[in-house]
Amino acid sequence: MAATTSSSSSSSGNRKPELRKDTVSNRWVIFSPARAKRPSEFKSNSPAVSDQQLHQRCPFCIGNEHQCAPEIFRVPPDNPDWTVRVIQNLYPALSRDLPPPGPARVPNNLPGSVLDGFGFHDVIIETPIHSVQLLDLSPHDIAQVFLAHTKRIHQLATHHSIKYVQVFKNHGASAGASMSHSHSQMLALPVIPPNVSARLGNMKDYFEKTGKCCVCEIQHEDLLIDTSDNFFSMVPYAATFPFEIWIVPRHHSAHFHELDAEKAVDLGRLLKLMLRKMSLQLNNPPFNFMIHTSPLHSNASELAYTHWFLQIVPQLTLTAGFEIATGCHINPVFPEDAAKVLREVNVPESG
Amino acid sequence: MAATTSSSSSSSGNRKPELRKDTVSNRWVIFSPARAKRPSEFKSNSPAVSDQQLHQRCPFCIGNEHQCAPEIFRVPPDNPDWTVRVIQNLYPALSRDLPPPGPARVPNNLPGSVLDGFGFHDVIIETPIHSVQLLDLSPHDIAQVFLAHTKRIHQLATHHSIKYVQVFKNHGASAGASMSHSHSQMLALPVIPPNVSARLGNMKDYFEKTGKCCVCEIQHEDLLIDTSDNFFSMVPYAATFPFEIWIVPRHHSAHFHELDAEKAVDLGRLLKLMLRKMSLQLNNPPFNFMIHTSPLHSNASELAYTHWFLQIVPQLTLTAGFEIATGCHINPVFPEDAAKVLREVNVPESG
Repeated sequence: MAATTSSSSSSSGNRKPELRKDTVSNRWVIFSPARAKRPSEFKSNSPAVSDQQLHQRCPFCIGNEHQCAPEIFRVPPDNPDWTVRVIQNLYPALSRDLPPPGPARVPNNLPGSVLDGFGFHDVIIETPIHSVQLLDLSPHDIAQVFLAHTKRIHQLATHHSIKYVQVFKNHGASAGASMSHSHSQMLALPVIPPNVSARLGNMKDYFEKTGKCCVCEIQHEDLLIDTSDNFFSMVPYAATFPFEIWIVPRHHSAHFHELDAEKAVDLGRLLKLMLRKMSLQLNNPPFNFMIHTSPLHSNASELAYTHWFLQIVPQLTLTAGFEIATGCHINPVFPEDAAKVLREVNVPESG
Repeated sequence: MAATTSSSSSSSGNRKPELRKDTVSNRWVIFSPARAKRPSEFKSNSPAVSDQQLHQRCPFCIGNEHQCAPEIFRVPPDNPDWTVRVIQNLYPALSRDLPPPGPARVPNNLPGSVLDGFGFHDVIIETPIHSVQLLDLSPHDIAQVFLAHTKRIHQLATHHSIKYVQVFKNHGASAGASMSHSHSQMLALPVIPPNVSARLGNMKDYFEKTGKCCVCEIQHEDLLIDTSDNFFSMVPYAATFPFEIWIVPRHHSAHFHELDAEKAVDLGRLLKLMLRKMSLQLNNPPFNFMIHTSPLHSNASELAYTHWFLQIVPQLTLTAGFEIATGCHINPVFPEDAAKVLREVNVPESG
């Protein structure tokens, strides 16, 4: 993007982020001039570098903390020998330095509405070591990553204008990662994003029709991959993407950030198994994972019908004109076939 | 996808396409085993080939019609020296050979609903010549492409179970094109896709509040790029993607397929100008364009508040975890900046 945005008017340079929606699509879009300045280590045509050089250059590596945006906390606290660090994103999509926004405004004669781009965009560095990927970590160490997410969400929940926190991970350049050092991100938003509103609406409709939470009812043997004490993994019946995987809490739970330490280890074990199966079966694809949870300030009835889950999407297909236009995806792999394949992947004991 | 889907259960081989939605996201997804078999000329590691070899290999080139799926019609009719051909897609996402579906069924104990994958997936070959791109064509020749789209939509509209026709173009491998020979596609669907339902709902709300069509009201000088007799081009106020462009009919018009021959030339002229500006300014990026129109069997009130337009999206950013999860996009370029840049691109007279 650097080449294209540098040619756009210089007014972007000093502008603050905004959220806007137009009258036709009526969906919030985040306008973030800071994101245009983000470098990508994947795009550089630099010659191959050694592990030692990578370590010296990568701001996420242990010892290079001074190259990063400010730290929020680390695990263990105040320990130079940290295992997880939560820091500010150096190129935040939203700004924590703006005043919390009031209600959306209708700009002068312009076809839409606008909100100042207040929010938080943090990075969770999942390991101090450059060459270690999330699936290399032990279930206990993956649990530390999840518990860093939940601790940070509890902090963000004290801001009354933050409505929703999206936790996500981009792994691999084509899945949107600009840094190869293993990390996840969280964006704390002053609005409920469109897919979340739609999901809540569907869950509410189902609850009103049946008296049940639709996620509590979702398990089916044809779609099941694996189970653990507190979770199961499955391919959804209408998976949007080939080999998409959901990890679902067995017992009703509206908020990811209520995860306790014991369940975090169990979740770490099942996530590690899914990532290893995906890597073995699909040849280590780029992937995203996203945690779908409930809005921070949910009322009692919302808590009854919403149920969090983790979605893993290997990047195997492209989003093209049809998908952009319609919001309807074309998936070449039937979910029960994907589930069978993933059920049967032979994962070596070690590793 | 070939490597991954070949390893999935053999049951996919003989399966018919289906549309499914699950209870959580409640969005139609097309399951299409045929798409997994689609080769991609971009992925092949074959050595560089000459223009002559390309012509011999490319089924879309004039003289190679026998390598294609059946023709639906050509322009001019019955002429070996055609300029545009409309053919069936050899790897259709939906099948024209299934009986038109009844109402959606709830499958046995499975969390969702399902519809047989009846529909039409056609390809419009925009030029007989391999090396010619859409922006190289004259406004008159681009008009022939649009008129082929509209003629085919009129044919598809005779099928009562077809609810919506999506016209789209993928240009460049990373924008989803599997063939480099200039072409567009259309998918005739037995459902109204989710983004279309949402757009219609927004337009209806706006109409009920103001008594006006929101697209008739959308023009604003800060967002305007260029104008023609019957159309204007603009960047939407909350553009989802950087340098996204809309081409909008000046006068209220619900259905793209009512476009007449004179307006088609005018539209061809403005589209050519936008594609040339985008190519000059953004260094010939991969792109998609999509025609957003109204459902085929709209009633009078829907016709009053819906207004078709053409959306062009250069592929400059990646869709990553945050966007997949939330449906909210992060755009690093403010629309008024993008509009100013595109307004001011200096397009040479010739070409």
